[in-house]
Amino acid sequence: MSVDELIAQRDRARQDYEALVAKGLKLDLTRGKPSPRQLDLADGMLAAVDRAVSADGVDLRNYGGLEGLPELRAIFTEALQVPVGQLLAAGNSSLELMHDAIVFALLGVLPGAERRWADEPEITFLCPVPGYDRHFAICERYGIKMVAVPMTPDGPDMDVVEQLVAADPQVKGIWCVPKYSNPDGTVYSDDTVRRLAAMETAAPDFRIFWDNAYAVHHLTDQPAEIADVLALCAEHGHADRAFVFGSSSKITYAGCGVAFFGSSPANIEWWVSHTSKRSIGPDKINQLRHVRFLGDADGLRQHMRNLADLIRPKFDAVDKILTAELGGTGLATWTAPAGGYFITLEVPEGCAREVVAKAKAAGIALTPAGASHPYGDDPADRTIRLAPTYPDLAEVEAAITGVATVVRLVAAEKALSTT
Amino acid sequence: MSVDELIAQRDRARQDYEALVAKGLKLDLTRGKPSPRQLDLADGMLAAVDRAVSADGVDLRNYGGLEGLPELRAIFTEALQVPVGQLLAAGNSSLELMHDAIVFALLGVLPGAERRWADEPEITFLCPVPGYDRHFAICERYGIKMVAVPMTPDGPDMDVVEQLVAADPQVKGIWCVPKYSNPDGTVYSDDTVRRLAAMETAAPDFRIFWDNAYAVHHLTDQPAEIADVLALCAEHGHADRAFVFGSSSKITYAGCGVAFFGSSPANIEWWVSHTSKRSIGPDKINQLRHVRFLGDADGLRQHMRNLADLIRPKFDAVDKILTAELGGTGLATWTAPAGGYFITLEVPEGCAREVVAKAKAAGIALTPAGASHPYGDDPADRTIRLAPTYPDLAEVEAAITGVATVVRLVAAEKALSTT
Repeated sequence: MSVDELIAQRDRARQDYEALVAKGLKLDLTRGKPSPRQLDLADGMLAAVDRAVSADGVDLRNYGGLEGLPELRAIFTEALQVPVGQLLAAGNSSLELMHDAIVFALLGVLPGAERRWADEPEITFLCPVPGYDRHFAICERYGIKMVAVPMTPDGPDMDVVEQLVAADPQVKGIWCVPKYSNPDGTVYSDDTVRRLAAMETAAPDFRIFWDNAYAVHHLTDQPAEIADVLALCAEHGHADRAFVFGSSSKITYAGCGVAFFGSSPANIEWWVSHTSKRSIGPDKINQLRHVRFLGDADGLRQHMRNLADLIRPKFDAVDKILTAELGGTGLATWTAPAGGYFITLEVPEGCAREVVAKAKAAGIALTPAGASHPYGDDPADRTIRLAPTYPDLAEVEAAITGVATVVRLVAAEKALSTT
Repeated sequence: MSVDELIAQRDRARQDYEALVAKGLKLDLTRGKPSPRQLDLADGMLAAVDRAVSADGVDLRNYGGLEGLPELRAIFTEALQVPVGQLLAAGNSSLELMHDAIVFALLGVLPGAERRWADEPEITFLCPVPGYDRHFAICERYGIKMVAVPMTPDGPDMDVVEQLVAADPQVKGIWCVPKYSNPDGTVYSDDTVRRLAAMETAAPDFRIFWDNAYAVHHLTDQPAEIADVLALCAEHGHADRAFVFGSSSKITYAGCGVAFFGSSPANIEWWVSHTSKRSIGPDKINQLRHVRFLGDADGLRQHMRNLADLIRPKFDAVDKILTAELGGTGLATWTAPAGGYFITLEVPEGCAREVVAKAKAAGIALTPAGASHPYGDDPADRTIRLAPTYPDLAEVEAAITGVATVVRLVAAEKALSTT
């Protein structure tokens, strides 16, 4: 493209951007929040319990029951691929459980560990990128060093992972969102899961933080299946390697769901040695609400299909608009995930921050550029996370159309600045 | 008393004890649990929310609202003596908040601290005895050294406390249950609270863990009032000294209540620097249930009066039976608290463990002897905690009558063994 053509392109994009700003939009694609209509589908929860007694006759209003309601754990055992006896049901947030797992490992000796992580000279976690900013924030809060590992269409680049974990005993963990990964929608291949389970690690207390946040969050009729990480770890002689996390936050109510922790018997015992000092038991009535509302694993599946019917049109709209506006321009690529909550938009190198800034100036709030990387630092400045679930369909359409305009403008300005 | 008289007394007690064992009782006075009838009084909670929207129009089903519902904090601000803006409402357990306060202090630098507690050579907490075993269990789990401080009728012996905190910069905290203390029912005098707030501590990051668990749990028509610890700390130039904890576990539902954390603005900011990495917000719908059910501070007071009507007869029965069975014998003393959940029974030195063991053999479960002391070690082996709220009145009467029999037997055997 000649400089004149570039200038003409930029000028057209500028006009479009000025028109966009003039609209005075106020749209928010920042966080993976369920929409009010999604939450409406779970309103049966509110009146689901009129007598708070468990299946085995326990008065759920009182203290106790640290491991969570067995009948609730039974509903999620298949989806999370954790035997009921190794699956605990807790409070309203799996993020809390991930945070606490790190805290407990810092302050208590993990099975297989030589010492508390707080007594190690340094702790390093591997962070497949793009990844989830709240994972990275926990590491940063507790001074855990993060090393980025590139994602592939099959999950983290296992050649890199295997080399890093074999070389350094201070590498103690890896963050994984194995199904419909946040934010690029990747589903880990069976071979990736097997290699994670089988690999030799220099640290005897290496842990996979398996955040299976989107285990049942399918958007197509072909639900993705991933390999059973706990079984594979045990099979390869690393039974205590994986911590499995999940929650119903994006199934029932985002703020009032139930979170799950699953692991090996030794890890569960270690976990309870901490939580039994901390807790008088989870809110068992809220757990019973989930049992009454979801019924069983089939009920869970049907509820997720109903939710997908609300979410799918928004994901389709994003893909359709980006294709119409940016397809064939070479200015961007984007994912079309089969589940989960996010779409990753890749823009030309050095443009992501400016796209987010100009979108903001036009009233379209996006997740900060860099958020998908440790320390908020995307070295290529390319990756933008789009979260289309919360706004209604018309708002998603307006926001993505605006984002495409911004991408055209920023890319043209960038191209001109380097000619 | 002559040896013959002692033998006769022991033989009578033995007969009574054998008759007790023959009854095959199965009674439990171990934990401070609300009775089913108490919980029934809160059953209005279950259907209290049919539309989950806050006073200011926020959809409470979704993520967010880390500080908790303002309208709930407003109900508890007076009872907990914490300004609404410095009072956070969280999940279902204040024990969790106390645990997390210690964890956050171990892993993050407290306002006024020179370093993280995890980086200190040693951390010591003062433990007024008798005290609460779950406080001690948290310290023990994290290797925090505990030093017992005797209780007086006005609270901890402040001469001892002042000396210990002034002498050693590793003394970083003290556990306090300032109103109707667990287990002896003591109400801290204004002078005790003032001295706690005013005293000079060698540690710049000393904290009072102010577990105001029984703030509104009165059993008489003269509610105990304690001094305002946050205000006194600020007044004496130690604004960041106190962490205030409270909960509705013994107000509404024990397992599904709401817990509170209150402190200085600097401490709240520090707290949120941790919790904002951990949490996506508390269960706000359960908080709204509390708002709808309790209404306001007057509603809370009325509800507590209704609960007291169920609890008071049990405390009265304990006092009446112990007076009838042991009064004037010199074999025991016991508290007659004006609120809270516990009665402390003091038996002759060296007898508490044996009383608990023999009670157990007769089907009466008591809190383990020593539980009210750090490391489960009551050096005098004298203190037994009685928790009369959970069993029904007839069971309490049967259990306490049995306990009195056991005390007579163990004391007689002890007296004989030392003649």
